[in-house]
Amino acid sequence: MTLPDKMNALVQLHDGYAATQTGPNIADLTPFVAHQTTAVPQPGDGQALIKVHMAAVNPSDIHFIKGEYGQPRRKDVPAGFEGVGEVVAGDTPLLGQRVSFFASASGAWAEYAMTDTATLVPCRPDLAEVDAAGQLVNPLTAIAMFDIVKESGADSFVLNAAGSQLGKLLIALGRDHGIKPIAVVRRSAQAANLRALGAAEVIVTGELDPLGTAKTVFETFKPLILLDAVGDQFTSDLFFAMPANARWINYGKLSTEAPALTQLGQMIFQHKQIEGFWLTRWMKEVDPARIPQAFAEIQERFVTGAWKTDVAGIVPLSEAITKLPEVLAMPDGKAFIDPRA
Amino acid sequence: MTLPDKMNALVQLHDGYAATQTGPNIADLTPFVAHQTTAVPQPGDGQALIKVHMAAVNPSDIHFIKGEYGQPRRKDVPAGFEGVGEVVAGDTPLLGQRVSFFASASGAWAEYAMTDTATLVPCRPDLAEVDAAGQLVNPLTAIAMFDIVKESGADSFVLNAAGSQLGKLLIALGRDHGIKPIAVVRRSAQAANLRALGAAEVIVTGELDPLGTAKTVFETFKPLILLDAVGDQFTSDLFFAMPANARWINYGKLSTEAPALTQLGQMIFQHKQIEGFWLTRWMKEVDPARIPQAFAEIQERFVTGAWKTDVAGIVPLSEAITKLPEVLAMPDGKAFIDPRA
Repeated sequence: MTLPDKMNALVQLHDGYAATQTGPNIADLTPFVAHQTTAVPQPGDGQALIKVHMAAVNPSDIHFIKGEYGQPRRKDVPAGFEGVGEVVAGDTPLLGQRVSFFASASGAWAEYAMTDTATLVPCRPDLAEVDAAGQLVNPLTAIAMFDIVKESGADSFVLNAAGSQLGKLLIALGRDHGIKPIAVVRRSAQAANLRALGAAEVIVTGELDPLGTAKTVFETFKPLILLDAVGDQFTSDLFFAMPANARWINYGKLSTEAPALTQLGQMIFQHKQIEGFWLTRWMKEVDPARIPQAFAEIQERFVTGAWKTDVAGIVPLSEAITKLPEVLAMPDGKAFIDPRA
Repeated sequence: MTLPDKMNALVQLHDGYAATQTGPNIADLTPFVAHQTTAVPQPGDGQALIKVHMAAVNPSDIHFIKGEYGQPRRKDVPAGFEGVGEVVAGDTPLLGQRVSFFASASGAWAEYAMTDTATLVPCRPDLAEVDAAGQLVNPLTAIAMFDIVKESGADSFVLNAAGSQLGKLLIALGRDHGIKPIAVVRRSAQAANLRALGAAEVIVTGELDPLGTAKTVFETFKPLILLDAVGDQFTSDLFFAMPANARWINYGKLSTEAPALTQLGQMIFQHKQIEGFWLTRWMKEVDPARIPQAFAEIQERFVTGAWKTDVAGIVPLSEAITKLPEVLAMPDGKAFIDPRA
C-alpha cells in the first residue's frame, strides 16, 4: 500500500502542562487544537501506523489538551488517545488487520495514528466500530477497577459520576456478577435509567439530604470500595460514611473543589485508605495474562449486548472544532470523531 | 500474698464516646476522672492482676478519658493504658515478676491494674522504672512504624510533632539505621535539640515559608513515608510536596483542622496514598515473632542509652488530679503517675 505524505489532523497548539485546573469540560477547542494538514508519521522500530476508522473522545482527552492531565502535551502532534483502524505500516503480524489502539506516539484525532505495536488489540469482525473505538480507556478501566471491587469481598460498591460511560459499564459488571452497585449522580433524571441498567440504589446529590440517604444505604449494603471520578467534598463525606476498611479510589477529577478530610481518625481506627487508580500503571503491574483475557471479555460483552456504547454523536474530523463542544455537552453518551468523513 | 479488697484509683466518670473533638490537651481532669476508693479487680481466666509501680500518661490516655479516642470509655473503671508493676495474681508463669503491661481490663492509674496475660512484657532488671512504664505505647509504635519506613526503601523519612517522646524515639532509630529523619516542629527552639538527636533536617512551621524549605529538602532526600501525628493543612501540603509513591501515614490528631486534598490527582498519576497506623491492629497483623524481638530491642536501646525517657514529672496518684495538668503542659518530657507515693 502506498501511503500519502500528508494528512488532516487536530494538532495540539501547546507543549507541556498548563497552570490551570478547570476539569474535563470544554466550550471551545480553538485555544488548544487546530485542524491542520500535517505529515503522516513514519513508524520506527516497535511502532505501527494505523489508518483511523474512528476515534473516541474521552474526558481524559479534554483534560489532556487543556494541559491538566498527568502527561505533558506535545506541540504540533495530533491529539486523541484512542480509536480503531487498520494497521497499514510497521513490523507486526497484525498488518492489514482491524485493531483498537492507544495512540502513544501520534494521536487518534487524525487520518493516521501511531503507537507501540505491543499495545494493539485485534478486533472481532462482529464488534461495532463505536465499541471498538472506545474499547481501551473505559472498558479496560472498568474491568480493572471491578477486579479491585471483587477482591474487596464486599457484596456492594459505590461509584459516583455513575451516569458516565464508564459508570454504566461498571453498573452492568456489578449486575452481572451479583455485586450491588450504589450509583451516585447529580440529577434525579438519571436515576431510573441507572436502576434499569442494574444499580441497586441511586443517590442523587441534588436531592434533600443525600448523605443521610447514603448512610442508610451503606448500613444495608456495607460497600468497601468507592470508585471516584469527581473528587469533591461530597465524595469525602461519602467515604467517611462508609464502613470500616473502606477504600476511596480516585480515578478522575470532575470537580475543582479540594475535599477536606473531616474524619481523619477513621484512617487509624477504621483502617480506611485513600488511593488512586491509573490504567497505565495497572497495565504495567497486572499479571500480563489478564490483559488479553480482559479484551476477550470486553468484546464478548459488547457483541452480546451485556454492554452497549451510548453514542451522543459522530462528527467528521474536518468539522470537529466547531461541532465537538455541542456533542460533548450532551449529558449521556459518547462523542466520536470520524477522519474518513 | 493476701491482697486488699479496696484500692485508690483515678476512676472514669463517663461511658462511651463524647461528641467533641478537641485533641489530646487538658487543663482540668475533674470533668473526666475522680480520685476514689474502688474494688481491687479480680482476675478471670487468661487475666493477670498487677500491683502498679508506675503508670505512664500518654496523649492517647487524655484523648481516651475525654471520649475522643477510638475506644469507648467505661464508667467507674480506672483510666490509664500502660505501666509497669509486679504480677500479683493470675494464672501465668510471670507471677511475682516485674512486667510492663497494657491495661486492657482495668486501668493503670490505680494501685492495681488488670490485663490479659498474653500482653505482659517481662522487664530486664537493669531497665529503669520510667523506661519500663512507657515501654509499650511509644517504643513499640516507633519500632512498628520504623519497620514501614525501612520497607519503603527510601534513605529518608518525614515526621511531624517531632519533638514528642515518640518523635524523639523515631529520630534516634533513623540515626542508628542510617535513614535520615526530616523533623517537622512548631518552635525553632526545638530544632537544635532534634539535630543533636539525629535529625538530618528540621522544618520549623513557625518560620518563613516552611513549605518552600520542605520542597528543597525533599528534592535532596526523596522521602517516601510521612509519619503524621498532627493531621493539619500543612501536613497535607507536605504530603503533596513529597515525591511520587509517597505515603501519608496518620497515627494521631493534634490539630482540629480538616486538611484539604489540594492535589488529589497525585493519587492517580504519582501513586500516592493516605492511610492510618494503629498499634492495636499492627499487633494483630504482624508476624507474632516480631513482638518479643521488638521488646528485646526496646529494652536494649533504653539500657544502653540509644533511647532515653525525658521525664517531665512523676506525680503521686493521690495528687494527680491537681498536679497532672501542669506536668502535661510542659513542652518536652513525659508525665508519670506513682500509685505507691
